[in-house]
Amino acid sequence: MNPELKADLDRIFYPRGVAVVGASDRPGNFGLMFTQTFLQMGHPAVFPINPRGETVAGLTSYPAIAAVPHPVDLAVIATLKETLPGIVADASAKGVKGAIIFTSGFREIGEEGERLEREMVAQARSNGLRIVGPNCQGIYCPKGGLAVGPGASRESGPAALISHSGSLTNFLTRSAVSRGMFFAKAISLGNEADLNSADLLEYFGEDPDVKYIIAYLEGSREPRRFFELARRISPQKPIIIWKGGVTQRGARAARSHTGALAASEEVWRALVAQTGIIPVGSAEELIDTLAAFYFQKPPQGRRAAIVSGPGGPAVATSDACVLAGLELAELSSQTRQAIAQGIPGVGTSIDNPIDLGMAASRFPEWYRLSIKALGADPAVDAFLIIGGGNMEVSQAIVSSLKQGGKPAALVMMGEMPGSAEIRDYYREQGLPVFADGRRAAQALGRLADYGDYLRSL
Amino acid sequence: MNPELKADLDRIFYPRGVAVVGASDRPGNFGLMFTQTFLQMGHPAVFPINPRGETVAGLTSYPAIAAVPHPVDLAVIATLKETLPGIVADASAKGVKGAIIFTSGFREIGEEGERLEREMVAQARSNGLRIVGPNCQGIYCPKGGLAVGPGASRESGPAALISHSGSLTNFLTRSAVSRGMFFAKAISLGNEADLNSADLLEYFGEDPDVKYIIAYLEGSREPRRFFELARRISPQKPIIIWKGGVTQRGARAARSHTGALAASEEVWRALVAQTGIIPVGSAEELIDTLAAFYFQKPPQGRRAAIVSGPGGPAVATSDACVLAGLELAELSSQTRQAIAQGIPGVGTSIDNPIDLGMAASRFPEWYRLSIKALGADPAVDAFLIIGGGNMEVSQAIVSSLKQGGKPAALVMMGEMPGSAEIRDYYREQGLPVFADGRRAAQALGRLADYGDYLRSL
Repeated sequence: MNPELKADLDRIFYPRGVAVVGASDRPGNFGLMFTQTFLQMGHPAVFPINPRGETVAGLTSYPAIAAVPHPVDLAVIATLKETLPGIVADASAKGVKGAIIFTSGFREIGEEGERLEREMVAQARSNGLRIVGPNCQGIYCPKGGLAVGPGASRESGPAALISHSGSLTNFLTRSAVSRGMFFAKAISLGNEADLNSADLLEYFGEDPDVKYIIAYLEGSREPRRFFELARRISPQKPIIIWKGGVTQRGARAARSHTGALAASEEVWRALVAQTGIIPVGSAEELIDTLAAFYFQKPPQGRRAAIVSGPGGPAVATSDACVLAGLELAELSSQTRQAIAQGIPGVGTSIDNPIDLGMAASRFPEWYRLSIKALGADPAVDAFLIIGGGNMEVSQAIVSSLKQGGKPAALVMMGEMPGSAEIRDYYREQGLPVFADGRRAAQALGRLADYGDYLRSL
Repeated sequence: MNPELKADLDRIFYPRGVAVVGASDRPGNFGLMFTQTFLQMGHPAVFPINPRGETVAGLTSYPAIAAVPHPVDLAVIATLKETLPGIVADASAKGVKGAIIFTSGFREIGEEGERLEREMVAQARSNGLRIVGPNCQGIYCPKGGLAVGPGASRESGPAALISHSGSLTNFLTRSAVSRGMFFAKAISLGNEADLNSADLLEYFGEDPDVKYIIAYLEGSREPRRFFELARRISPQKPIIIWKGGVTQRGARAARSHTGALAASEEVWRALVAQTGIIPVGSAEELIDTLAAFYFQKPPQGRRAAIVSGPGGPAVATSDACVLAGLELAELSSQTRQAIAQGIPGVGTSIDNPIDLGMAASRFPEWYRLSIKALGADPAVDAFLIIGGGNMEVSQAIVSSLKQGGKPAALVMMGEMPGSAEIRDYYREQGLPVFADGRRAAQALGRLADYGDYLRSL
């Protein structure tokens, strides 16, 4: 990518100093929230900017960015729109590289706002300052000491997020972290008046800390560039996108949210198919799909084996697999015999789905021998495992899956005593856990789609 | 319905005495589990049957049902298949009305099992004994002192469940209870060799304790009767059905699970459309849909208003509404003016979705005035409300929704400090809460479908 853009983004994600403009100790002040958040993330050089020289979150404030006695690479601006030209001039004077503009009331409100937005970007760019936003919530980067709100994890990991929504930047990263998936970087782009989703896609594509890219997008400022980048990057790094504004009413809502001009659903679907992008349709599905990619490799094909304790979920998940584009593996007679020798002939089934019956939770070896036999059967590409209601069974599942080396999704329905501990154990062992068989089948289906896409190249 | 069948089912759900055949104090013994479960549910007359006269769960056991010195209306049988003819004879001698047969190895394993099953039913029926199962997990009925597993709620409520899966009888009732929805009755029918889903649908249709009927079904023994009953009952009591075995592979799995002969998906869809049945496709969707029906009345039409704090979820949920068959209400200029007067003009939107912006969580009155204005607008049939991150906002939402009297679904994404308390508050106030905008839109869409169906009659 353009080395200048890369250097600017590096400074923005890992700023030597951050100024928070419009910070005061008033409760509910957004500048205060950002100041506290950066401190909590361990950033060593946070500078509240306050014209009255008030103390903010216990820190000395400065009347202007130019007055800060330390390098400042990033400014976060949460002030009235009218003050922005002056603040941009102040930031430029200090040599700031990037400004996160939280303030809204630009392109998303119509023509007058769009004009103001253009003027602001022109002023900033002519002074070497890049804009994130306006109408955005900023950046999450644990290694850079940044987050979009209080309480974010300081642990870094291989995921990255591009979002047109500030609240979703917050929600999606938290939701992923609560399921054991961590982020190198996340960015809320708002109206993306300057830095846009294509810039960030390119940057994350080259970022060695990033292995998986997820996005919530309402439109694209540079659709052609975005899709060309996606085509180039997706074979190395899966790109999972939740598109807002796929219906006419959704698109109308997107216009007043971020001023985005959304493509129609048909155009979107066509582009997705050509570029290896993995499309999803909700926050939950985005996190579920990320879990499949984050914890597992794409399968060699679409043929899944289901191993279940409970019988009803085994039947329903068979449907869900087929509806999600998977096939149910036709097992060899050797495989079926191997399983039949180790489990009771009654209350069970050795067809696929393998139904281990009501008593399975007391017999970890039933899971072990079934998974071992299926792991050795070349007709099986991936596993969907339902149950595992206690630690002994979970350990048997994990160890036998590791032998076969085939990707797997675990289904744990509902909360029982000990569920949280078992879910944590699965995640530590690198296995994604889903709350519902259909959700697991859909996520595994998208992982199989990606495997097919890679083989088609 | 047939008064004899009704009388038998009354005795089965509210048995004066329950015998548990095949109970022993061995860990993992299913008879022990049922004995403990019934005691926990407060049943006053539980009698373990054990030929060696062992004490079970602290209770005296009896060598045969006929030896129990108390009326016994229900027997739960968890013994080897070969012993069943003798046990059926014993139960008949005692005048038992119903036998829950947990034992499997009948129709689901093929012809030989089917023959045995037929013989067993013939023997039982000729002695006035009705069979639940075989290959099932029994009955949950708080008022009758029965449950399918330990730890079930003793609180009774207006929901009822018919299930071909024992584990799902357990999971679905628990999952609903954890979301504030309680059951009058639930039954696991297994192979439904005798009592079948049509019998239970008819019984629940006439049961004054039951207002909502949900089901997990893999097939139907009497499809014509089932659909005629559904058509008759659904205008009074919504019937929400999750069908297992809708794909060929799912149907094959259903055959080895409960011996069910599943209808194809097309036949199923056609029947559903003619009878007002509400179809769903997963456990999660079943519980979500029940939540909409349980807590809210069907809307007068499909025109939803979305009120949101966060902007991204407002856009995405607009899409989800349209894709779920709802419309987004076109608001009158009066409504828009009323809202515009009370909220800031920037960082918000007064189109539908109403986006109250980042600061909304600090201004409960923004929610209050928006919901009040929308409640008064005849173009709005139902609400979808996203956010409400603190108790003050939640109280404003609840009180203003009550004024308008229009149905609503709440979306609370993720866990924050205080979330559990707020969710409980919403449920106490009779409002369903969903973890994802798409799930809320889908559930509200099904409620609107049902409203349309009622108006079409």
